[in-house]
Amino acid sequence: MNHKKFYGIFPYLVTPLDEKGRLKEQVLADLVDHLIRKGVHGLTPLGSTGEAPYLDWDTKRRTIEVVVKSTAGRVPVVAGVCNNSTEGAVHEAAEIEKLGVDGLLTLMPGYFPLNDQQVVAHFRAIAKAVSCPITLYTNPKFQTWDLTVEALRELAEEPNILYLKDASGNAGKIMSIVTNLGQRIKIFSDTSSVPLFMFLIGAVGWMSGPACVIPVQSIELYEAASQKRWDEAVELQKKQWPLNVAFQRFSLSACVKAGLEMQGFPVGPPLPPQKQLDAEGRRIVESILKSIGAL
Amino acid sequence: MNHKKFYGIFPYLVTPLDEKGRLKEQVLADLVDHLIRKGVHGLTPLGSTGEAPYLDWDTKRRTIEVVVKSTAGRVPVVAGVCNNSTEGAVHEAAEIEKLGVDGLLTLMPGYFPLNDQQVVAHFRAIAKAVSCPITLYTNPKFQTWDLTVEALRELAEEPNILYLKDASGNAGKIMSIVTNLGQRIKIFSDTSSVPLFMFLIGAVGWMSGPACVIPVQSIELYEAASQKRWDEAVELQKKQWPLNVAFQRFSLSACVKAGLEMQGFPVGPPLPPQKQLDAEGRRIVESILKSIGAL
Amino acid sequence: MNHKKFYGIFPYLVTPLDEKGRLKEQVLADLVDHLIRKGVHGLTPLGSTGEAPYLDWDTKRRTIEVVVKSTAGRVPVVAGVCNNSTEGAVHEAAEIEKLGVDGLLTLMPGYFPLNDQQVVAHFRAIAKAVSCPITLYTNPKFQTWDLTVEALRELAEEPNILYLKDASGNAGKIMSIVTNLGQRIKIFSDTSSVPLFMFLIGAVGWMSGPACVIPVQSIELYEAASQKRWDEAVELQKKQWPLNVAFQRFSLSACVKAGLEMQGFPVGPPLPPQKQLDAEGRRIVESILKSIGAL
Amino acid sequence: MNHKKFYGIFPYLVTPLDEKGRLKEQVLADLVDHLIRKGVHGLTPLGSTGEAPYLDWDTKRRTIEVVVKSTAGRVPVVAGVCNNSTEGAVHEAAEIEKLGVDGLLTLMPGYFPLNDQQVVAHFRAIAKAVSCPITLYTNPKFQTWDLTVEALRELAEEPNILYLKDASGNAGKIMSIVTNLGQRIKIFSDTSSVPLFMFLIGAVGWMSGPACVIPVQSIELYEAASQKRWDEAVELQKKQWPLNVAFQRFSLSACVKAGLEMQGFPVGPPLPPQKQLDAEGRRIVESILKSIGAL
Repeated sequence: MNHKKFYGIFPYLVTPLDEKGRLKEQVLADLVDHLIRKGVHGLTPLGSTGEAPYLDWDTKRRTIEVVVKSTAGRVPVVAGVCNNSTEGAVHEAAEIEKLGVDGLLTLMPGYFPLNDQQVVAHFRAIAKAVSCPITLYTNPKFQTWDLTVEALRELAEEPNILYLKDASGNAGKIMSIVTNLGQRIKIFSDTSSVPLFMFLIGAVGWMSGPACVIPVQSIELYEAASQKRWDEAVELQKKQWPLNVAFQRFSLSACVKAGLEMQGFPVGPPLPPQKQLDAEGRRIVESILKSIGAL
Repeated sequence: MNHKKFYGIFPYLVTPLDEKGRLKEQVLADLVDHLIRKGVHGLTPLGSTGEAPYLDWDTKRRTIEVVVKSTAGRVPVVAGVCNNSTEGAVHEAAEIEKLGVDGLLTLMPGYFPLNDQQVVAHFRAIAKAVSCPITLYTNPKFQTWDLTVEALRELAEEPNILYLKDASGNAGKIMSIVTNLGQRIKIFSDTSSVPLFMFLIGAVGWMSGPACVIPVQSIELYEAASQKRWDEAVELQKKQWPLNVAFQRFSLSACVKAGLEMQGFPVGPPLPPQKQLDAEGRRIVESILKSIGAL
Repeated sequence: MNHKKFYGIFPYLVTPLDEKGRLKEQVLADLVDHLIRKGVHGLTPLGSTGEAPYLDWDTKRRTIEVVVKSTAGRVPVVAGVCNNSTEGAVHEAAEIEKLGVDGLLTLMPGYFPLNDQQVVAHFRAIAKAVSCPITLYTNPKFQTWDLTVEALRELAEEPNILYLKDASGNAGKIMSIVTNLGQRIKIFSDTSSVPLFMFLIGAVGWMSGPACVIPVQSIELYEAASQKRWDEAVELQKKQWPLNVAFQRFSLSACVKAGLEMQGFPVGPPLPPQKQLDAEGRRIVESILKSIGAL
Repeated sequence: MNHKKFYGIFPYLVTPLDEKGRLKEQVLADLVDHLIRKGVHGLTPLGSTGEAPYLDWDTKRRTIEVVVKSTAGRVPVVAGVCNNSTEGAVHEAAEIEKLGVDGLLTLMPGYFPLNDQQVVAHFRAIAKAVSCPITLYTNPKFQTWDLTVEALRELAEEPNILYLKDASGNAGKIMSIVTNLGQRIKIFSDTSSVPLFMFLIGAVGWMSGPACVIPVQSIELYEAASQKRWDEAVELQKKQWPLNVAFQRFSLSACVKAGLEMQGFPVGPPLPPQKQLDAEGRRIVESILKSIGAL
């Protein structure tokens, strides 16, 4: 296969919804255009920040259509697949690929615990069902399973499983993956990790909820790191870090949506039962965004 | 409101599926008829054992239709609602009520963590959307939230929230609930708890995956307890306990489905990525079922 | 061997200490005498409530001497051994046996994780070093290891390992132990469990921090259960339950010490860094003790 | 105060013990001399790898005497204090300071949970009892408490609390500490973290169990990082990483002791109930040490 290589800053797009849970298509299109003009290297709709585990298929399909259309090929679109059932995930992946995305990101919240064998079979089935590149996603905080180094080694046999985004925040595990599989699986940093560290050991980019509200700053950090200006990268990382802390203390999609509202994008609140950012959280996010120059 | 009271043994029905994930309607109808003839007091389709978190809406709707029709009013049907989004859950609950069930059981796997306020708002919205009685369900092992005693106290303000099934296996928590809210919320034991203990402090029944394969033995235990033949109840509980241990050691729906296959109901394997019971698990389940007189 | 059988209510004695951490011997002797006069069936100094993991050997030895002397053979004394090192624990157990106790309770906080083999070797070594009966203690909340059913089965080969106090609060695990080893290992309930449930399946007694402040009420519950007056036992358990909840919400030794101070025993605060009960905790404990008739 | 500054590689010394648990003084003296000749910047006896939570005071005191004497001022000695009781820890710290160490490392396994206020009071009391610099240590995996950023901020008020070694392996937490308190509290990396990352954000050194067996390689990594030869540092970190993984998979002191035995230091096995490295572990550690050039 001969895919585009993915690298750089991929904002984890929020899904703008009105009070009835309907997609606000124009707001989404505007956000896509805004982020591309700011210089992001790609877009990732329907990840965690995009509230994929809360959305029905029609909303998800329409979200991807809007993103693909408004992106218009300017940057790659890597869209989330999110389904607990293997058959459901395979079907969803195939449908999403047909909508014209450049790659897939695989979420699976799960319910009953899974062993390595089941995890491998699930993602292998998805990989075989599509031809585009796949970014595996694991987030043990919100799932009932995890992706071990051994499972990842098996999954690397699938030629289109090319990237990993591991939201464990466990730097040691990422180090083990890079040491064992770094030639085969490329790493995208996530919001729970320290992207500076990921870049130092060769991560190709950062798929990030916060990048929706600080695209320029995220790109600056990525570029300092990829050009090995490490002293500068350290300073940028320290300056941006409080935003990561706030976004994890409060809920991720609530924070990103609140920040975007402050920047003039009426993306609405997260879908209940998720909580909207309260007054204190709003104040903290606002104050940090100002200190970083994003408001 | 003037509802039927729910009590006794409610098997947590498996969802029979073929190798393509399609509902095996006749097998389900046969199982329903078999369990009612064995004397169960009610039926609970689409709980955890029913693989609700893995099924799409069409399969879930058809499952309920088949169960309601084959039950034909002989016992109450309490069907599971399972949706991460409040709006989705409200819609699903209203649709399911229209299919003729007698009550609802509320599952919510979740993704981002929720505080009490969000949990209360979610289940309150479901309660207000229907008029049938609601059994709240919480299973902190497979969810990213839990139902606290305080949240339950608030939810008890809704007149149709009448029952609780708490799968924490935390006997102390149930004791606190009975002490604080026992006059208002009735308890159903679950598979992770020791039903004998729940009966002693006043539980009205047992919603149970294993009851699909040991309906008669489950009823015996329930009756010994409700007639305060405690010495006999203790012996029955001890005799049945190894089945609970096996069902939790392996996966619940995998065990129940394997046991039913042994009893002649071709319910198929659990939906991938869930794991089918392996040879060792099958041998253990078979040996326990024989020792209890269920094979 | 021909040991006294242990049964009934064994208060987990607090260790009265002055502001410099020195044992208040007379207060301890008075408390011992008071509890025996109230009818307790035995005494357990140097458990968790006795702050064993915080005390040096001289204080522990002197505590046992005072308890043994003031008990004067009226009831059995089962004293805690608490040492992370096998050699240290063996030495301590042998020394404590020489002080005239009737049995030992084994604590081990641990540090690095241990597998079953290590756990078995540790407690086996203690058992072989003494001739008195041993009550195994496990509390996974505060330890870095746990006692599995399999490890317990191996430990039951030691003729003087006769009792178990499992503070996991996991009713299902106790049910498995009773089912598998109930003829060989007798169960004492603990503070995290619901003693009513333990009595129903044959527990011989209750080793309990709260029994220091509610000895009469604890005996009442034990007697109702052992005489199979279950309806009465359920009512007594419900009435006493709020005290268990409070004692676990705040710190156990802090609560028991505060309650005893209210009853006129100047036992002092728990040893720092443990926290003394704050004003709100004190108010709650006082109110519950009054409602139970213990103040 | 005018202290020596601590920086660089501080091996976490094992405590060589014979089969009866007695200190092998000459082996310890030889190891100290060996490590100093290899170029380590300091020595840390009686940390976790030194089995402090398993040793009695006499063995601990004698260990420090031997290390101080054989070091003979060539490098700083930062010795572990390990006691659950505040009074015990204060007493131990004062005694250890008198033995001529250059600094203290504070361990506290704990038993009952502690809130920030109690944690702060405990370590503040130790700090006030001595005049030497203090390195705070926290390891939430083996403790029943943790050191929050807020507690650390309060503890930074003590002028001799100067360093932190946080074994959570949580890179984000370290990032938050550096961002908030980096001017005041200096970081030593630990074995659970990725030292490369810690060095990038300004850690002054690495207190490390593995450094006992790979002192030269540890120094190489530290020097590459402190001289900002990052590409080289990354390669060194990747090469050494498998040792960290093995040391965490098996038990830390068991691995370090086995590795030292292979290098000709008869340090004996870890104290029971800790487990000695089994044949497979030994083979893996040997193979990794050979691949790194340490055997």
